[in-house]
Amino acid sequence: MRALALVVLVSSVALAEEGMFLFNEFPSAQAKKDVGVGPDQAWLDRVRLGSIRLANGCSASLVSPNGLVMTNHHCIRSCLEDLSSKERDLLATGFLAATKDKEEVCPKFEANQLVKITDVTTNVLDATKGVSGAEFQKKLRAEVSRLESECSKGDATKRCDVVTLFHGARFHLYEYRRFQELRVVFAPEFQMAAFGGDPDNFNFPRYGFDAAFVRLYANGAPVKTPEHLKWAKQGAKENDVVFVSGHPGGTERALTVAQYEFLRDVTLPWSLVSLAETRGRLDEWMKQSPDRERIVKSKLRAVENSLKALKGRREALVAPGFLEKKRKDEEALRAAAPEASKGAWDAVAKALLTQRTLYVDYQMREGGQAFSSSLFGYARRLARFPVETAKPNGERLREYSEAQLPALKQGLLDAAPVHPELEKVSLTWSLTKLREVYGADDAFVKKVLAGKSPDDRAAELIDGTKVGDAKWRKERLEFTGKSKAPGGDADGRQVEEVDPMMAFAKLVDDDCRAVRKRMEDEVDSQVRKNMELISEARRAQGPTGAPDATFTLRLSYGRVKGYGSTPAMTTVKGLFERGALGKAPFLVADKWNAAKAKLNPATPYDVATTNDIIGGNSGSPLVDKNGDVVGLVFDGNLQSLGGNFVYEGAENRTVAVHGDLILAALKHVYGADALLKELKP
Amino acid sequence: MRALALVVLVSSVALAEEGMFLFNEFPSAQAKKDVGVGPDQAWLDRVRLGSIRLANGCSASLVSPNGLVMTNHHCIRSCLEDLSSKERDLLATGFLAATKDKEEVCPKFEANQLVKITDVTTNVLDATKGVSGAEFQKKLRAEVSRLESECSKGDATKRCDVVTLFHGARFHLYEYRRFQELRVVFAPEFQMAAFGGDPDNFNFPRYGFDAAFVRLYANGAPVKTPEHLKWAKQGAKENDVVFVSGHPGGTERALTVAQYEFLRDVTLPWSLVSLAETRGRLDEWMKQSPDRERIVKSKLRAVENSLKALKGRREALVAPGFLEKKRKDEEALRAAAPEASKGAWDAVAKALLTQRTLYVDYQMREGGQAFSSSLFGYARRLARFPVETAKPNGERLREYSEAQLPALKQGLLDAAPVHPELEKVSLTWSLTKLREVYGADDAFVKKVLAGKSPDDRAAELIDGTKVGDAKWRKERLEFTGKSKAPGGDADGRQVEEVDPMMAFAKLVDDDCRAVRKRMEDEVDSQVRKNMELISEARRAQGPTGAPDATFTLRLSYGRVKGYGSTPAMTTVKGLFERGALGKAPFLVADKWNAAKAKLNPATPYDVATTNDIIGGNSGSPLVDKNGDVVGLVFDGNLQSLGGNFVYEGAENRTVAVHGDLILAALKHVYGADALLKELKP
Repeated sequence: MRALALVVLVSSVALAEEGMFLFNEFPSAQAKKDVGVGPDQAWLDRVRLGSIRLANGCSASLVSPNGLVMTNHHCIRSCLEDLSSKERDLLATGFLAATKDKEEVCPKFEANQLVKITDVTTNVLDATKGVSGAEFQKKLRAEVSRLESECSKGDATKRCDVVTLFHGARFHLYEYRRFQELRVVFAPEFQMAAFGGDPDNFNFPRYGFDAAFVRLYANGAPVKTPEHLKWAKQGAKENDVVFVSGHPGGTERALTVAQYEFLRDVTLPWSLVSLAETRGRLDEWMKQSPDRERIVKSKLRAVENSLKALKGRREALVAPGFLEKKRKDEEALRAAAPEASKGAWDAVAKALLTQRTLYVDYQMREGGQAFSSSLFGYARRLARFPVETAKPNGERLREYSEAQLPALKQGLLDAAPVHPELEKVSLTWSLTKLREVYGADDAFVKKVLAGKSPDDRAAELIDGTKVGDAKWRKERLEFTGKSKAPGGDADGRQVEEVDPMMAFAKLVDDDCRAVRKRMEDEVDSQVRKNMELISEARRAQGPTGAPDATFTLRLSYGRVKGYGSTPAMTTVKGLFERGALGKAPFLVADKWNAAKAKLNPATPYDVATTNDIIGGNSGSPLVDKNGDVVGLVFDGNLQSLGGNFVYEGAENRTVAVHGDLILAALKHVYGADALLKELKP
Repeated sequence: MRALALVVLVSSVALAEEGMFLFNEFPSAQAKKDVGVGPDQAWLDRVRLGSIRLANGCSASLVSPNGLVMTNHHCIRSCLEDLSSKERDLLATGFLAATKDKEEVCPKFEANQLVKITDVTTNVLDATKGVSGAEFQKKLRAEVSRLESECSKGDATKRCDVVTLFHGARFHLYEYRRFQELRVVFAPEFQMAAFGGDPDNFNFPRYGFDAAFVRLYANGAPVKTPEHLKWAKQGAKENDVVFVSGHPGGTERALTVAQYEFLRDVTLPWSLVSLAETRGRLDEWMKQSPDRERIVKSKLRAVENSLKALKGRREALVAPGFLEKKRKDEEALRAAAPEASKGAWDAVAKALLTQRTLYVDYQMREGGQAFSSSLFGYARRLARFPVETAKPNGERLREYSEAQLPALKQGLLDAAPVHPELEKVSLTWSLTKLREVYGADDAFVKKVLAGKSPDDRAAELIDGTKVGDAKWRKERLEFTGKSKAPGGDADGRQVEEVDPMMAFAKLVDDDCRAVRKRMEDEVDSQVRKNMELISEARRAQGPTGAPDATFTLRLSYGRVKGYGSTPAMTTVKGLFERGALGKAPFLVADKWNAAKAKLNPATPYDVATTNDIIGGNSGSPLVDKNGDVVGLVFDGNLQSLGGNFVYEGAENRTVAVHGDLILAALKHVYGADALLKELKP
């Protein structure tokens, strides 16, 4: 806490390494000046095509000509859980496919490769010119849907997204190659991937072997990927120039003061309190049996990660001086803004006052916090599907637009197992939370609980539904809109009348849609429109650097570097020292202990770099000046948690698994010779 | 959330009923003007002597000449738990002593009756004139200790506290009669006391029968209390004038903007996140067995209560307009302040910057959040006792000063059972939290964990200690300072060397004391000194109303009143309607169902009033214009949660059990004829 407070105080100037840059607007000259390396277009194209986005919120890279993808263990943890059972716990044992035909399909996974970027700013701004509120939303949605559909043309192997940049001042159309079949090739033991657990998370020195390999398939065969990244001949050393090519999920460096206050006063406290309670519940619940631990460990880890990240973010936001500086900058910008934009800041603040009154309703209803259950998630999408797809493309909820449908369908048709016990406790908790938030006398609460207690209601919905069956969902999807859909009964009743979870999704849908509509019309559209004006005013003042992150491909440059008395790298020797206690979460896996003699104690383990990254960059390749792989990004340090709002080069560090360790572990610990040969032929 | 936001916006003027007034400065003329009743001195003295403070943070009243005390069930819940066992669960069954000799001693309880108030402002201000920092602390502590000792003269039946009022502008010496033996007389079933559970907590309409009776004893016999309050002949009706005489724990209505920002940015988020996680853990832990539920239910309820209260408080603090108004008021006050005081606001802000850097250290170490275990609490006090009592009175830590020693000793010598399983999980959680907060590489973490995992360390400390044995603690206390204290061994080693928890308390003590000293010298003394100046500046501007609450006796006036469409009272009929579902926490107890026919459905159940109260007022008598009992305060509504910062009469309500219900329940449900006769002879 102290450290973070100080950090923010000193960060008044943009530091050399700040910036998650667009590939089509990469400042090569600046990079050349700052770190002595300025990538040319061929370099940029090669690294772009070697970069992969996982639709679940991670980054990755292509590392062989046969579709081999490197990412973090934590990015495919849910896959490993889905492939596990009471008898076979892949988190505990790890996984290595002896041959390609032993590679197993990850349910729920999608990968994207960015093949083309087109500037569509003019199209979008023209379409929304002169309108506001619901009309703005409608026009915006229609134009975005049109652009995306025109690009993807219903081709399920393409994904096209219109990306909002600079808070609406620019729009780019990203065309991706879409892969919907990923198979797991290699994963270490969870205890090694997440070595140090929650205490070490976001810390450095660090000993995480957070690496995994999957393979892209199409029509049952590995995809050919000649455009892959090469493994570097030489490992990274201190002070080496390194790049991170990945998908930072989001930053909030160019918000208005009112928006920062909203985060401070509304969003962050809500999330933190909610995550903290969930963490306590999951952790205690998990302790009751090994089977519970197996099915919930990964979820808990994700919750703990968010909790720590948001805590750090909040602390950066309330650090003395941060908001005062933003306020001064804003006053200056406002004074210099063109007359037409001067009201934009107040307009944003006014929309946020509306959002305050909608926030909890939105979270609980459309946000689904009142119905926390993957079965509810399936049911809602199944229930909305026929309603939305019957509308013209431009009028649908965004996730049902033609360009988004393949992803939606894949999510609905995945074969991930559902754990009824977890579904029940989770739904019970969230129904209880709903009652807590609104009180037992609230009309919506009464409607949702239907005269039952939260646990009885949850049991009734979970026990009675067929929604957990992927085959049943597929039939349902294919029979959409027909009067006698599968799951209905002989009397011709619709499935919503027969299946309790489907009926439930329908029961609450109007309430959920209502608050979403108000949020879109009265808040989002106001904020977007006015942020666009503010962003233009800022751009008019001079160069603004990279736009805030948007889970789209960015490139950042930096160097391998420690901070304070912390060295830039840890070593294999350090791992065994840290594991000497022999107690989780500092427990070295048996295979590693067995291989200890074969491992060189001096081999670098994890590495810290000055690159500017944020959540979403997990799994990004760390590449050298030639664009060749020297590591695998998996975290930032505690001092990087304020990176959402400000980059501070003195102590903000990216944390990656060193490339040398990946090779050494595959060779000496796991005997993964075929994989090794594929990586470094 | 919405409701609270609106509430604060409209509350720009002090409302008639605002104020938790000092008994020795009660504005009778103003009360007469506002509600038509202006109590005279005899009325005030009578009600003051009929009011009781429970040292655990509650209020109560004397309601018979034989030491009978009425308070809330939730105020003695820990006593009921301490008297319970696997075989006898007093929370489940309730308790009624058939005769006086069946009344059972509550461990850990102390009651105080305020017999005298003396203004000692001049003494304290003279003693601290012209000094600051550590010297200020020292002089202040010395003078306060001197005044308190001079008052109590070592008499264990007296308690003397110097009370800081108006943030240091005034000091009053409160002399109490002290009772250290309380026996439980009557308690209803937990399910009736806390009917509606967490969802109904802080709500109205409400159906809590949160009542209990205990009796004061001295030397094994009931204490004679001719000064008790009388039960009113006539129950309270809508619009009746009512008073609440009790001990509001604390308000923060006259802070500086920097202090409010500190609450918003540091204190409240820390507490909320911590409470939320604890709540999740306790709730899941409790669900695993009925025995766990028995020993932890009350603790969980307290955690949930705090969580809801602090949530509401935070929302009031960040409500649009609240801080802006405080900022404007402060600017005006500052402009008008005498030259010598003008720097006080900045000085407070500066001290708070220091507090930011100490906050987490303080909470974890001296605040004990890293060592959450009642055994640690005993051990720390036992370890500090000989060290502190060897010092001159004025130089001791405040809780070891002569005047405070009887309370300290009583806390150490109570016979409350210790639950090792709960101790272990609680200590494990908090040690884990310590490691989470500082990281595994931190020197203090390493010292505390001593190379072990949190669960192993907790088990070692809990399993090995004798500290849980009250008899052992007594021996230890009496042999203090001697070289071969009980618990030591034949080789003459001190007990700290033999008992692991005692050794642990000693191990961490320097670190804990160090942060406490910095907090007192660099923060508290600076804040106190400057708040004194600010408070004087405010008083110089005109009447300031009541001082912020300080868990000392206050009197507030108001009326029985509903709000919006909510009526002022609920009825017995409503209870049975709300319980129709028959599911916890809305489950009517068997005895009540059995008595349903005998109960008049129209009997008032709970009642809402406009009195200005806050946490600590739980258990306060609600009295009519004659000073006679018409109800028992146990809660406020959701709209009162901002009352910490601002009173808003339109919707802020006190919630009490109606006097008529108490009589009806004792008669028809519990057949408590003797008790009834004692209340209403």
